[in-house]
Parts: sequence; C-alpha cells; structure tokens
Amino acid sequence: MTQPQHQSRKDSHMQLGLIGLGKMGGNMAQRLGSRGHEVIGFDVSPDSGRDVSSLGELVTQLAAPRVVWVMVPAGEPTRNTIDELAELLSAGDLVVDGGNSKYTDDQQHAAVLAEKGIGFVDCGVSGGVWGLQEGYALMCGGDAEHVERLRPLFDSLKPDGPHGFVHAGSVGAGHFTKMVHNGIEYGMMQAYAEGYELLQAADLVDNVDEAFASWQSGTVVRSWLLELLARATEDDPGLSQIRGYAQDSGEGRWTVEAAIDHAVPLPVITAALFARFSSRQEESPAMKVIAALRNQFGGHAVGKSGDSADVPVS
Amino acid sequence: MTQPQHQSRKDSHMQLGLIGLGKMGGNMAQRLGSRGHEVIGFDVSPDSGRDVSSLGELVTQLAAPRVVWVMVPAGEPTRNTIDELAELLSAGDLVVDGGNSKYTDDQQHAAVLAEKGIGFVDCGVSGGVWGLQEGYALMCGGDAEHVERLRPLFDSLKPDGPHGFVHAGSVGAGHFTKMVHNGIEYGMMQAYAEGYELLQAADLVDNVDEAFASWQSGTVVRSWLLELLARATEDDPGLSQIRGYAQDSGEGRWTVEAAIDHAVPLPVITAALFARFSSRQEESPAMKVIAALRNQFGGHAVGKSGDSADVPVS
Repeated sequence: MTQPQHQSRKDSHMQLGLIGLGKMGGNMAQRLGSRGHEVIGFDVSPDSGRDVSSLGELVTQLAAPRVVWVMVPAGEPTRNTIDELAELLSAGDLVVDGGNSKYTDDQQHAAVLAEKGIGFVDCGVSGGVWGLQEGYALMCGGDAEHVERLRPLFDSLKPDGPHGFVHAGSVGAGHFTKMVHNGIEYGMMQAYAEGYELLQAADLVDNVDEAFASWQSGTVVRSWLLELLARATEDDPGLSQIRGYAQDSGEGRWTVEAAIDHAVPLPVITAALFARFSSRQEESPAMKVIAALRNQFGGHAVGKSGDSADVPVS
Repeated sequence: MTQPQHQSRKDSHMQLGLIGLGKMGGNMAQRLGSRGHEVIGFDVSPDSGRDVSSLGELVTQLAAPRVVWVMVPAGEPTRNTIDELAELLSAGDLVVDGGNSKYTDDQQHAAVLAEKGIGFVDCGVSGGVWGLQEGYALMCGGDAEHVERLRPLFDSLKPDGPHGFVHAGSVGAGHFTKMVHNGIEYGMMQAYAEGYELLQAADLVDNVDEAFASWQSGTVVRSWLLELLARATEDDPGLSQIRGYAQDSGEGRWTVEAAIDHAVPLPVITAALFARFSSRQEESPAMKVIAALRNQFGGHAVGKSGDSADVPVS
C-alpha cells in the first residue's frame, strides 16, 4: 500500500480507505495501488500490514469527500463497520460494501448512512485469489451518480476488455446479482462433480482426469471451472488427497431463500446446495428412517450404528 | 469434397469414406478436406452433395485397408449402416462411429465387425455448428492400434492446442465419455437458466441480460455456454421470442440410466433432465393429483381444466 499523500490527484486516480486486508481486500488494495490509486488500508489485525490503526484515524487521513471501501465478512462485522462509519464520516462521503453481504442488509446499511447524507454502493466481487492477476468481476447496485464517482476504481479492479462490470440496479442489486451468480456456481460445480463420479464408477474410462482435461477445448462444457478442475487433478490425480465434503458460504442458501420468496423453481441449484449438506453428515438421520421402515414392512436387514454401508444389504 | 484419387498419400493425409453428410458430417467432411484428407462422402439423400450413390460404390472407391467414418443418427440408422458395412468391408478395414450412439451399442457393433476382422472405434464428437471453425472435441474408445491409425484424422478434426482429444479406453469408452459430457451440459444449462429466471423474477436487477453478459470476464461462472447465452440475448433481449420448453436428445436419459446401473447419485443432472420433461407438458397430471388432494383434505380451491394458473388460489 502507498503512504497517504494529500496531493492533487490525476482525474483517473483516486484516494480511498480500504477496510479489511484479508485474502480479497489485501489483493484488491495491491491491484488498486499498482494502478495508481492511493489506498489507505485498515484491518483489525495489527499484522495485516495496515496503514492506520483505527477507523477514526483512517477517516482523518482521507480528504473529503471520502470514499471508503468495506471488505470484511458479511453480517455482524460489516454491520458494525457501517454503523461506525455512519458516526465518523460526513455528508457527501461514499461507502462501498464489496463483501459478500446479503442484499437485504444493503438496504439497511444504505438507510443508516443516508440519515447522515452518506452515499452507499453495494458491490459483489468475484474472482477469488485469481482476481489480483486477472481482474475482479464487479456487480454493483446504487445511484448512478455514486457509481459514476467510483468508476476509476471499478475500471482498475475489473478485468481488461468489455466485460466484468455491471451496474445492476439500485441498492442491493449488486449483491443480489452476485448471490445468484454464486447459486449458479453451485449448480455448475455439482454437475461436473456428478459427471466425474459417474465416469469413475462405470470403470469403462481408463483415466477420468485425462477425459476431463481434454474437455478444455472444443466442447460445450468448457469453462473456467473446468480449467480449475484440470489443475486440481494434475496436482492430485483422482483427487485421492481430498475428502469428499463441502462447506457452503451462505450465498447458496440465500439464493434458495430468494427463490422461495419469489416462487421460482430452482431444482438444480437447490439440489446442489442440499448435496453439500448431505456431504457434511457423518450419519444420515433421514436414512435411519428409511432403513427402519424397510425393516418394518419388508423385514429388510438394517445396519447397526457404526457398521459400514459398503456391503449391500437386502 | 475432393474427388476420389487412388494416388499415394502423404503420411499425414488419409483417404476415408464418410457416411452421413448432415450438419455434423458435412462440416466435418469440409474440415477434413480443407486439411488435405481425401474424403469420399455418402448420404442417403441425393441432395446431400454426396460423391457416391451407394455404400457399395463407396467401398469400391476406397483403397484397402479402408477407413469408413459413420456419422448418422444413433439407433437403427447406425445399426443398419454397421450391418451393411460388415457385409461390404474386408478384414483389416476400420470403421469409426462418430455419431451419438449409446455406449452399449458400440460393443454390439464392434462384435459384428470383429467377426469379419474389421476394426471399430467409437468417437464422441462435441462442437456442434462451431466445430467447423473451432475444431471438434473428440472422445474415442477402442484398441490403441486402431486409434493410432486414425490419428491424422483426429489431429485435423480436433481444435488446435493441447486439449480436445482423449482416447478414453476400450470400445464404448468414447461414447460413454461423450454421454457424461452431455449430462454435465444439462446440469450447467439448467443452473444458468434457473439463475436467469430468479434474476428476472426478483425485479431488483434492471437488465438481466446485461448482468449475464458482464459475467463473461473475471467470474467463477464464465464459460462457453455463458458466451452463447450472451449471444442469444443480444439477438433477442429477454429471450422474448423463445418459448420455454426444451427437447432432450437421449444422452441425458442414458446418463441417468448409467447412474442407476452404478448406483451413483446424480441429483443435479437428473433434476435438469426432469425439468425438460416438465417443460414439455401442456398439463401436469402430477399437479392434478396435488390439487385434488389439497381440495379433499383442506377444501382448497381447484382450477378447472383450461383455467389459467396465474391467479394464486388458496
């Protein structure tokens, strides 16, 4: 990060405060800094390489009208940061939430800040650890005037070329778009995963990794996710070193909740989310019920708690 | 297509008979011809631009040991072609099935041909109408010796670069790999489709097409399918000109059948297939049952056959 300098800036270069210097925030600060922006970084951790040691200090270092980009975990941490900024900032300042907040939080945060005349833009950011090098895809929501003010930052963060940025609508539209993006990601990942398992199980294909890797050109299923999977299996053939369960970070759940709110059928995205839930169960209470009922009506054998399920029972 | 010439060939250029000059076969013949191979084309249709008017004539035009590439619809048409070729060809000749045959058919076809000493390679071909220009992804199954003999054809058909070809295993492995590829495609397409519907329904995002198009760079969901969707919505914003139902070409069904044979859970791919079935129903017999039962136990209103379901009933 560059040191704060209250000098006149070129039109396309901005000064901003960036709160949260983790994997995402740290890399974004680096990308912004390398493209000429003056980033003053703050993080609660003293080991983060932060430029200032408190939000108050951050705000005094910024020239008004200020821009503060929040990049902290969704929920409480973001809410608390927004509340504190509402106290510290002044009318005309502008806050961006680039974290993974739920879209309904955005509307609350915007309202808290608006009471003080502070603007708010929500910005869903995709790209993970690759963003530093390839650019971050940005989906933002808010007033056109606010979005335009941030344009130099968006232009530096996004990938080169015509794509990778959308002003999706009013406050909340950015995180909503990012949320649906992540829901789609769940479904795509599960589709590849199921195909991988079936190719392995059928025992007709000699090298499943090789088949998947070959798909990177010319096929209908070629994608960035497929390239990542090919990298993963190159490092770990057959994925023998990975245990088969997956966490979920919330956005899949919110996508399904939004679908319920709007009565939109999401069979694939929901099935992908539920497959992750199943993957984290040591034991399936639902399958205890199935086994118990099969035993009751048909006398089918039941396994005892702790038995292996490998041997098919009747 | 070039005229047949029984001249000595360069090492990397081959002579082949190609049966089936439809959208796929015709373009493949063109790509092979433009890369120096001598293609003798046959199709049942006289308007196909065929070089010969019968399978018998095709075989007499080819120098032994012959290579015949079959590119006709799966099922009966392919079976009949293989049977006829088993009569016409000689020991040492080699047949490729590049159509969308079911992998279990391959083993039967290979056996029929093997009785006469004729070799067989199954080759799943992906790329659709884009293959002529970008190359076809190839997934083949068969003996290594047979696959090596066809290598110059594969090299000309596949996309440039390291990917787009795999010798997946013995006979059937090529079409099995292609089948699973198509199953994955069903899941991916449905994931995008559900996200699109949810973004539209929530009414928070001003321009859903623009959001999707922006995802082409920097996101986790970027893919060739996404690029195709962006092209589709550029031509037809909001997809207002398309009716919302989808056919299925068989490979999704076979994927689910194979999953049942091997007891592999495919929640996403199966849901994607079933969503297509639902999309083709004018009326849902299953939902008649749900409505009837809700009426029985709770006195909830039922719509009459022909009513609109737009207005929510209790």
